[in-house]
Amino acid sequence: MLISDLRSDTVTRPTPEMLEVMFSAPVGDDVFGEDPTVNALEEKAANLFNLEAGLFCPSGTMTNQIAIKAHTEPLSEVICDYTSHIYQYEGGGIAANSGASVYLLHGERGKITPAMVRSGIRPNNIHYPLSKLVTLENTSNKGGGSFYTLPEIAAIAEVCRENNLAFHLDGARVFNALVAANEQPQPYGQFFDSISVCLSKGLGTPVGSVLLGNKAFIQKARRIRKVFGGGMRQAGYLAAAGIYALDNHVNRLVEDHNKAKILAETLQNCSYVQNIQPVDTNIIIFKLTDQITENQFLQKLAAQNVLALDFGPQSIRLVTHLDFTDAMLEHTVQVLRHLDFNN
Amino acid sequence: MLISDLRSDTVTRPTPEMLEVMFSAPVGDDVFGEDPTVNALEEKAANLFNLEAGLFCPSGTMTNQIAIKAHTEPLSEVICDYTSHIYQYEGGGIAANSGASVYLLHGERGKITPAMVRSGIRPNNIHYPLSKLVTLENTSNKGGGSFYTLPEIAAIAEVCRENNLAFHLDGARVFNALVAANEQPQPYGQFFDSISVCLSKGLGTPVGSVLLGNKAFIQKARRIRKVFGGGMRQAGYLAAAGIYALDNHVNRLVEDHNKAKILAETLQNCSYVQNIQPVDTNIIIFKLTDQITENQFLQKLAAQNVLALDFGPQSIRLVTHLDFTDAMLEHTVQVLRHLDFNN
Amino acid sequence: MLISDLRSDTVTRPTPEMLEVMFSAPVGDDVFGEDPTVNALEEKAANLFNLEAGLFCPSGTMTNQIAIKAHTEPLSEVICDYTSHIYQYEGGGIAANSGASVYLLHGERGKITPAMVRSGIRPNNIHYPLSKLVTLENTSNKGGGSFYTLPEIAAIAEVCRENNLAFHLDGARVFNALVAANEQPQPYGQFFDSISVCLSKGLGTPVGSVLLGNKAFIQKARRIRKVFGGGMRQAGYLAAAGIYALDNHVNRLVEDHNKAKILAETLQNCSYVQNIQPVDTNIIIFKLTDQITENQFLQKLAAQNVLALDFGPQSIRLVTHLDFTDAMLEHTVQVLRHLDFNN
Amino acid sequence: MLISDLRSDTVTRPTPEMLEVMFSAPVGDDVFGEDPTVNALEEKAANLFNLEAGLFCPSGTMTNQIAIKAHTEPLSEVICDYTSHIYQYEGGGIAANSGASVYLLHGERGKITPAMVRSGIRPNNIHYPLSKLVTLENTSNKGGGSFYTLPEIAAIAEVCRENNLAFHLDGARVFNALVAANEQPQPYGQFFDSISVCLSKGLGTPVGSVLLGNKAFIQKARRIRKVFGGGMRQAGYLAAAGIYALDNHVNRLVEDHNKAKILAETLQNCSYVQNIQPVDTNIIIFKLTDQITENQFLQKLAAQNVLALDFGPQSIRLVTHLDFTDAMLEHTVQVLRHLDFNN
Ligand SMILES: [Ca+2]
Ligand SMILES: [Ca+2]
Ligand SMILES: [Ca+2]
Ligand SMILES: [Ca+2]
Ligand SMILES: [Ca+2]
Ligand SMILES: [Ca+2]
Repeated sequence: MLISDLRSDTVTRPTPEMLEVMFSAPVGDDVFGEDPTVNALEEKAANLFNLEAGLFCPSGTMTNQIAIKAHTEPLSEVICDYTSHIYQYEGGGIAANSGASVYLLHGERGKITPAMVRSGIRPNNIHYPLSKLVTLENTSNKGGGSFYTLPEIAAIAEVCRENNLAFHLDGARVFNALVAANEQPQPYGQFFDSISVCLSKGLGTPVGSVLLGNKAFIQKARRIRKVFGGGMRQAGYLAAAGIYALDNHVNRLVEDHNKAKILAETLQNCSYVQNIQPVDTNIIIFKLTDQITENQFLQKLAAQNVLALDFGPQSIRLVTHLDFTDAMLEHTVQVLRHLDFNN
Repeated sequence: MLISDLRSDTVTRPTPEMLEVMFSAPVGDDVFGEDPTVNALEEKAANLFNLEAGLFCPSGTMTNQIAIKAHTEPLSEVICDYTSHIYQYEGGGIAANSGASVYLLHGERGKITPAMVRSGIRPNNIHYPLSKLVTLENTSNKGGGSFYTLPEIAAIAEVCRENNLAFHLDGARVFNALVAANEQPQPYGQFFDSISVCLSKGLGTPVGSVLLGNKAFIQKARRIRKVFGGGMRQAGYLAAAGIYALDNHVNRLVEDHNKAKILAETLQNCSYVQNIQPVDTNIIIFKLTDQITENQFLQKLAAQNVLALDFGPQSIRLVTHLDFTDAMLEHTVQVLRHLDFNN
Repeated sequence: MLISDLRSDTVTRPTPEMLEVMFSAPVGDDVFGEDPTVNALEEKAANLFNLEAGLFCPSGTMTNQIAIKAHTEPLSEVICDYTSHIYQYEGGGIAANSGASVYLLHGERGKITPAMVRSGIRPNNIHYPLSKLVTLENTSNKGGGSFYTLPEIAAIAEVCRENNLAFHLDGARVFNALVAANEQPQPYGQFFDSISVCLSKGLGTPVGSVLLGNKAFIQKARRIRKVFGGGMRQAGYLAAAGIYALDNHVNRLVEDHNKAKILAETLQNCSYVQNIQPVDTNIIIFKLTDQITENQFLQKLAAQNVLALDFGPQSIRLVTHLDFTDAMLEHTVQVLRHLDFNN
Repeated sequence: MLISDLRSDTVTRPTPEMLEVMFSAPVGDDVFGEDPTVNALEEKAANLFNLEAGLFCPSGTMTNQIAIKAHTEPLSEVICDYTSHIYQYEGGGIAANSGASVYLLHGERGKITPAMVRSGIRPNNIHYPLSKLVTLENTSNKGGGSFYTLPEIAAIAEVCRENNLAFHLDGARVFNALVAANEQPQPYGQFFDSISVCLSKGLGTPVGSVLLGNKAFIQKARRIRKVFGGGMRQAGYLAAAGIYALDNHVNRLVEDHNKAKILAETLQNCSYVQNIQPVDTNIIIFKLTDQITENQFLQKLAAQNVLALDFGPQSIRLVTHLDFTDAMLEHTVQVLRHLDFNN
């Protein structure tokens, strides 16, 4: 029996076709700038989002942390939702790596508004840090896969521009957002100063994210990547997977979204479910009734080869992805329907 | 006409008696540990709060920032109310000086509870920073001078102890709290790992705060003070004022509290006031009705020799203190009563 | 014509056999601790050097920078030779990542002695940083591939132990050292608190280094790796190359050393050479006579398909490695012999 | 018997005249920018050195550390002599406060040359930190009071300008340099981007240094001072001493220099002296013969009411100053002449 691993879309493994492409990729020493496959990926991703240049990094945490360090200076502050991955799940890196303070907004399902951003901008007074950077996360992980539309992004970009604030996108699942909004990546380049595009989640590659921005920004980012130790030598094997994924694994994300909706509908009728957050993309977050602990639930589920994630008090997260097949969906639906907590 | 300066209790100037003591203090080179007056102040303050040792510093921001740096390590997080001076008004120093992240609680008028502190402790997981330090501010400045009682402090100290968290008090106005609660400083030493005691606010000295803790902590703090550049040479002149203030200016704080209550009662009947926060000590925070801007109000007031502080949208703060005399109170009450915004 | 790339041993690319192993490696999500190949590499490397645990990272710069951050605390100082890679070539990371000061020793060809280390230990006085960490680089890159013997290492370890200093090895080319000294890796574990072992230089893998230490240290290192963004998902493809390299590419380093000696002997008789540093392993550093600039030399060489590195004023570095074949050696010797700077 | 305290010129205490001026000074809350005496001192010092603005701070360590932080950004490097106070005696603050790396030059008695500075500038390459700042110390403490002349300063300033490097002066004893060189402070403003002027050493004030620079720099410095906790409230009492010192204690430094020369001549003939560094200003550094330890010497001296400083292996430092009177000089000369280590 195959395991339905719904803990995260990071668990995706390369398809045979992707693997084939990876290990026939031409490579070189990227620290000398000579890996042709890395260069091709960086260029391809930059073109896609209409930004000048790209930088391939070992993780989305690194692309985010580099962006934060590049956009800030000592005594700066970053404005973001309090649920943001950069604040919640990157080990305190905003402060640890950049010495930057945070102004935490309280958005709706992880999504912030222009008015919220305005309220987070500090007056020009030496008692306060310098407001320097605004970040969005699209889709929002803790928001349960909620997404921004282009007009929403444009309105926040406007506030940033007016107030001379840099604007960064944590695009850990940006293609899920684009597919769900039925939008293209091209316009993003005019709104964001930098974008972190993750390749190893829904897109299915084994390792890596690309940071995008203008040339001067990417030059600075390259320097910070070196200091973090993120410069890899013959990284073309990994980059090749990214190129393949951008060509082949974007449009199919709609299937993951459909599967997520089916799972949510299934849960709607389960007695152990207290409530479910709206499902917009590939993430389902729901609350268990008070009689059941997260651990009990996860163990019962795992006993039937379905894995999910503890997501805080009474909360469970499921994430659909490339490796969650139709057969697995059918199996999971059956399992969820018949889970019994009465014995 | 004398000016009633209610912008802050930091504006206090030494009385003639205090100045006399300062002028005649014996001094030495404190970097060599040889200033007898500094040593006497540090010992006196430590004894008062039943902690082992003290360190005289140029400001309360420095005593707080040193404590945060001494209690944390890289990748740490500080748990505190979002209104805290250490987070709001120290230039982003938690991140800038210590590289520490913040977990911001939303207390009632700046006061947090044991349950809130518990909710802010991160699970042991590399995605999160290390929860290391809890801080209180007593009284709370942005909370409008609200104060903690000893049992409230003891309950939070218990959570800290159970979870191996350091516990620091920002005592910018700790004597206002003690006087209002009718408590003594002695018991504080068993609850807090460190205390910052400010001397230049309600106590009326020109410069300085004392950081208190055990000997090892103060040794570490001394090293951090050196790196921040807070080591002063013949600082005994300033320390002498502190000794005088501890002996002479603590009990009289009750007068400031009484004056604050009279001002609040006066404002209660003023048509330009939307609402007033409860007044527990020497701080009054109130909101203006929507027809009047903070600037209009402050200018009208200043024109009659009363100074107050803009404290955010529609908000005004008044702080009573040693240099705000009975005559000034009478004058201010008259001014507040007769302010007219209809022409 | 194949290019003889002697700029660095980082340019090595996987052999077909290594690529085969990579391609068929079992993988999982290493951030969940579930990549079996990564786990196997970490365990294998730890066993080899007789330390408890390992951590696979994207680069040797990251393993070094993590070790420095894990061994130090704020206000610390690192004692190392001024030629060290950690100081010279990691972008100022000692200060930028760890806020640590450096005490720079002036060793002989990059090699320091117990007496030098002793001279670098600061007195216990708040004017000085806290001496916390000593690092060696074995072999020494800027020292031209010089290496330490075990007794030399043991003597420095003794000074560290006496003075409560952590002891880290930058083992970018540690196997070159071991092969040249005819020593085994096992004893290293008793002398060093941590070791960075690079796999992508002489060992020929595309990406990665392993950091070794005791369990508590590696746990701390894992946390720091997360904050730097060095956690990779399905990293087993890269780790598989490391396992293969440790099994198959260590003993053959002697060939690289022999080739380096032949190149050095060739250069000895070339009129454009001012002097050559002793050649102990796979690095050759020599000075050009004053008539010739580095650029002129490198261009003439490149025109004949031999690449070398500018290594400072009048200095050139050559590094032999896995991909520098016998045929390339023969070609390079001919080219070096017949270079003519008189027209 | 009065004690001749030659350990440092920091031990100076205010004269009765200075004390009189201090305690009659008008003061205000400097954090509000309202202390007239602080403002007057900042302006006076800025005018003196022909720079736009000044910032009064609790110590010379703080003025230096603020300047370093203001002139650098993350991943920067500071170029300075390895004997510099900023590197040797400020607790590792360059790294700890600014995350900046150091390029350490090896000057002659603490004095560096334009060629040395040039050699310390890093190539534009991501492996290196960004060269951002050059600092001089004038006079040089560890150099035994050696001083730079204006043409020497101008030549280094030229290198800085050509290479877009900021240029900071640690003027802990800048007036000793000016008096010895028979120069005026005015021209300094055109060469340095920032100057730290210490008031509490030879000038005899109890506390404080002034940082000078252009307006934008001082605005940035004010923000950093806040974050370090260096903002003081009614600091005018201390600033008044600075104004008095600039008016009355500069020209008399020549007396300290003369006394230093007399002490050096005395030591020249003492059998326990191995050698003496040249004496240019108010510092005398000499080596004891190998038979005598520093401790033995210092204790014998102290027994006769003369205090000196252990300055490293076999080394002793004496510093003359305002509080070292003619009578003390006579006494000290007698003591030095008759010290006997043969029993
Ligand atoms: Ca994946
Ligand atoms: Ca005051
Ligand atoms: Ca306002
Ligand atoms: Ca390689
Ligand atoms: Ca060169
Ligand atoms: Ca003094």
